[in-house]
Amino acid sequence: MVQDYHKVQLDENDMPKKWYNIVSDLKTPLDPPVNPATGQVATAKELEPVFAKELIRQEMSTDQFIDIPPEVLDILKAFRPNPLRRAVMLEKYLKTPAKIYYKYEGESPTGSHKTNSSIPQVYYNMKQGVERLTTETGAGQWGSALAFACNHFGLESMIYMVRSSYAQKPHRKTLMNLWNGKVLASPSTNTEFGRRVLKETPDTPGTLGIAITEAVEDALSTPNTRYTLGSVLNHVMLHQTIIGLEAQKQFEMIEDYPDYVIACCGGGSNFAGLAFPFVKDKIDKNLDTQIIAVEPESCPSLTQGEFRYDYGDTGAMTPKLKMYTLGCEFVPPSMHAGGLRYHGCSPIVSNLYADGLIKAEALGQKDIFNAGIIFSQTEGITAAPESTHAICSAINKALECKKTGEEKTIVFNLSGHGLLDMSFYQEFLEGKIQ
Amino acid sequence: MVQDYHKVQLDENDMPKKWYNIVSDLKTPLDPPVNPATGQVATAKELEPVFAKELIRQEMSTDQFIDIPPEVLDILKAFRPNPLRRAVMLEKYLKTPAKIYYKYEGESPTGSHKTNSSIPQVYYNMKQGVERLTTETGAGQWGSALAFACNHFGLESMIYMVRSSYAQKPHRKTLMNLWNGKVLASPSTNTEFGRRVLKETPDTPGTLGIAITEAVEDALSTPNTRYTLGSVLNHVMLHQTIIGLEAQKQFEMIEDYPDYVIACCGGGSNFAGLAFPFVKDKIDKNLDTQIIAVEPESCPSLTQGEFRYDYGDTGAMTPKLKMYTLGCEFVPPSMHAGGLRYHGCSPIVSNLYADGLIKAEALGQKDIFNAGIIFSQTEGITAAPESTHAICSAINKALECKKTGEEKTIVFNLSGHGLLDMSFYQEFLEGKIQ
Repeated sequence: MVQDYHKVQLDENDMPKKWYNIVSDLKTPLDPPVNPATGQVATAKELEPVFAKELIRQEMSTDQFIDIPPEVLDILKAFRPNPLRRAVMLEKYLKTPAKIYYKYEGESPTGSHKTNSSIPQVYYNMKQGVERLTTETGAGQWGSALAFACNHFGLESMIYMVRSSYAQKPHRKTLMNLWNGKVLASPSTNTEFGRRVLKETPDTPGTLGIAITEAVEDALSTPNTRYTLGSVLNHVMLHQTIIGLEAQKQFEMIEDYPDYVIACCGGGSNFAGLAFPFVKDKIDKNLDTQIIAVEPESCPSLTQGEFRYDYGDTGAMTPKLKMYTLGCEFVPPSMHAGGLRYHGCSPIVSNLYADGLIKAEALGQKDIFNAGIIFSQTEGITAAPESTHAICSAINKALECKKTGEEKTIVFNLSGHGLLDMSFYQEFLEGKIQ
Repeated sequence: MVQDYHKVQLDENDMPKKWYNIVSDLKTPLDPPVNPATGQVATAKELEPVFAKELIRQEMSTDQFIDIPPEVLDILKAFRPNPLRRAVMLEKYLKTPAKIYYKYEGESPTGSHKTNSSIPQVYYNMKQGVERLTTETGAGQWGSALAFACNHFGLESMIYMVRSSYAQKPHRKTLMNLWNGKVLASPSTNTEFGRRVLKETPDTPGTLGIAITEAVEDALSTPNTRYTLGSVLNHVMLHQTIIGLEAQKQFEMIEDYPDYVIACCGGGSNFAGLAFPFVKDKIDKNLDTQIIAVEPESCPSLTQGEFRYDYGDTGAMTPKLKMYTLGCEFVPPSMHAGGLRYHGCSPIVSNLYADGLIKAEALGQKDIFNAGIIFSQTEGITAAPESTHAICSAINKALECKKTGEEKTIVFNLSGHGLLDMSFYQEFLEGKIQ
C-alpha cells in the first residue's frame, strides 16, 4: 500500500513567531544560579561581562512567550519550518502498529538544531555592539552554528573545540573555517586554564567543561567580547522551542497527538526544543504523554547524577547551577557522540525530571549504532551519533507496540545529520567498536 | 527589509506523476546508438544482457510523457518535492537586482539528484527479477544512490569507484557500505579490463570511462546481473526531469519565469533534469530563455569536444553514441569535481547544443571554489564541487545584471551538498589549490 503522506509541511509564514518560556509553568520554582564568589544569587549585573544583556533578560524572564525578532525569523525561514516527517519506511521495516514521526533538524546550514539559538544569540550581541564571541564546542555542531551566525552578522568567532572531537571530526573545523571561525583544540595554550590542564594532564581528551572555562576566560580578558553557550542555559532552551511549537501545529494539521516524545539529551537543548511545548500540554491538560530524555550510558547525568548545585564548567568560572550532575570534574570517555559528553544537564530539564514530568533512560553505544544503521537504510538519513540515541529509543518503543499491538504515536527529534561524523559509522562497520 | 518568502513549497501530492521525454520534441531527430560489432543501429535485443527491458524501452521511447510508477513516487515522496528556494541572502550580498532561485537536490538520502534515477532503475530491475546490479561512480554520488536503492529493493550492488575519488572521498565508500554496497577502486583486479589497465598504467587516477567498462564486463559475466548508468543515457535524463517539472509548477505559483536556467554538466543528468522542461517551453512558445550547461575547464566536452560517434567507455564495450566527446581515451586531470570527469556528454544534451537550443560554458577550479565559499557563507549550504560550477555561473549572471540594472530571473540546479567533499574546501583554504 502506498502511504498517503510522508511529510506534514507548515508554510513558512505560519512559523511560530514567539518562543515558549517554560519557566512560567514549572511546578517547582527554578533554583537560580549562584555566584560562587558571594554565595548569593547571581545578578544580571554580574553576568553582563559574560553575556549580552538581552540574553540575560531572557535567562531570567518568567514571561510565558517571548517575541522572535523579525530579523531572526527571516534567516530561520531559509531552512524552517521543517516538515514533521512520518518514518514510513522504518515503520514497514519494523512491522510495528505504532506511528513514528520525527522532526529533522539536519537541514540547517550546520546540519543540526544549533542554529536555532546561534542566530538569535549573535543577533542580540550584534545589536549591543559586541564585536567578538567565544564559545566551546563538543562535536562541533554548536561551534559551526556560532561561526555561521557570526559570519552572517559580521562578528568574529573564537571556538574552543574539545580535543577528542577536534581529532575525530576534522571537517567540522573546515566548516567553521569556511565561515571565518577561529578554532583551537581544547585544552589550548591560549588561556591560563588551558595551559594548566595541559601541564597536569597532557593526554586529556578534553571535556566540554574545560572548553567552557577557556571560552569564558577568553571573553572576560578580551575587549568587546562576550561568551555564548549552545546548551544548558534557560535562554538556549527557549530558542529551541521553535521545534516543538512547529511540531504541535503539524500534529494539529493531521489531527494526531504523540503518546511518546523522545530526544537525546546532553546539555538538554534539542530535548528541550521538542519537548517543552508538549510538557506544557501535559501540565495544562493533565495528559499522560511519556516525555523521554535519552542519554549515553557513558555520561548518564540524569539517570546516575545527583541533583545539586554544581559549576557549569571544569575551571569553576561560571555561576553554580542547580542541576543533575556527575560532578564538574567528571571526564567522560572519548566517544563519537561528543555533543553528549557534558557532566551536567540543563537546570530546567533537571527541574522537570525531579518533578516527574519527564523520564530519562541511558543507552549503550552498540545499540545506538545499530539503530543508526537501520534508520539510514530505511529512511535514508544518516544521523549524527547523538541523534541515534533518540532513534534507538523510538525504535524500542515501536517494538514494544509490536508486542502489545498498541497503535501508539511516537515523535522524536532527529537533531542532526552524521555526514561529518562518518568515522563513527566506519569504525563500527570495521568492528573497531563493540 | 524582510523577504516575503524564501521557499516556494509544492505539496507532495502535487508532485509530477509523469516524466518528460524530450526526445519527442527535438528539432533534429536523435542519432541512435550503434553496435560497434555490426556497425548497425543497436537493437533492444542486443542491449538486454546489459540493461533491464523497461529501461531499454524508455531509452528508445518517443512518448512525450512516461508514467512514474506509484511505488517509485512513494519513495521519492520521502524527500521530494523539494522547495524552489530564493537565494535571498546571496542576492543581498551581491547587491544584484536579479532574482536568484535554485532547486536543492542535496536533501535526498545520498545528498544529490542521483536517487531520482537510481530508485526507478533498481525498481524496474527488481520487477524483472534481476538480483544484482553493477555500476561505476565518479565522486561517489551515483554509487551511493545505487547502493541505497538496491538496499531498499533487496538487490546486491557492486560499485566500481574511480580511483582518484576513492582516495579523496573515503566516507562516500562508508555510505555505500552502510547500504550494503560493495565498492572497489577502479581500475580493479576484479575484471580483465581493469587488470589490463593496471598493468599498462599502474599509477592511473582512473576515469569514469574505465570504470564503466569494468562494470559492464562484470554484469555480462555474472549470472542474473545487469548494469546501470547514472548519467548520459536517455532514460537517466528522463528520470531527472522531475526536477524541472517541479520547478515549472513552483514558478507558476509565484507568477515568475526564469530568463536563465543553469546547471553543471558532466554526463548531463542534473543539467537535463532542470533544463529539459524549460527547453520544451522554449521550443513550444518560442522563448529566448538562456539555458546554460556549465562544465569544468579541465574536462570541456561541450565547449572543446567534437560532435561525433564515440564509445561511452574506455574499453569500447558499450554501443557507440553520437555526442560531444574529448575521445573515450581522454584522461581528465584528477580534480575535486569527480562527477564531471567524463569524456563525453549525453547524446540528447549534445543534440540540443548542436541545434543551438542550449549554451555551454567552461569554468576554472579557483572561480568555482570562490563561488562555493560565497554561497556557503550566505545561503548556508556547502555545495558539492560539481554544483559550485552552477553557482559560479549564476553569480556571474547576477553580477552582469548589477552592471546593466536588469531585473532578470535566474534559476540554477544545486545538484548536491559537499559535506562528504570537505577536503575540496580544506585544500583550497590551505592554499594547496590555486
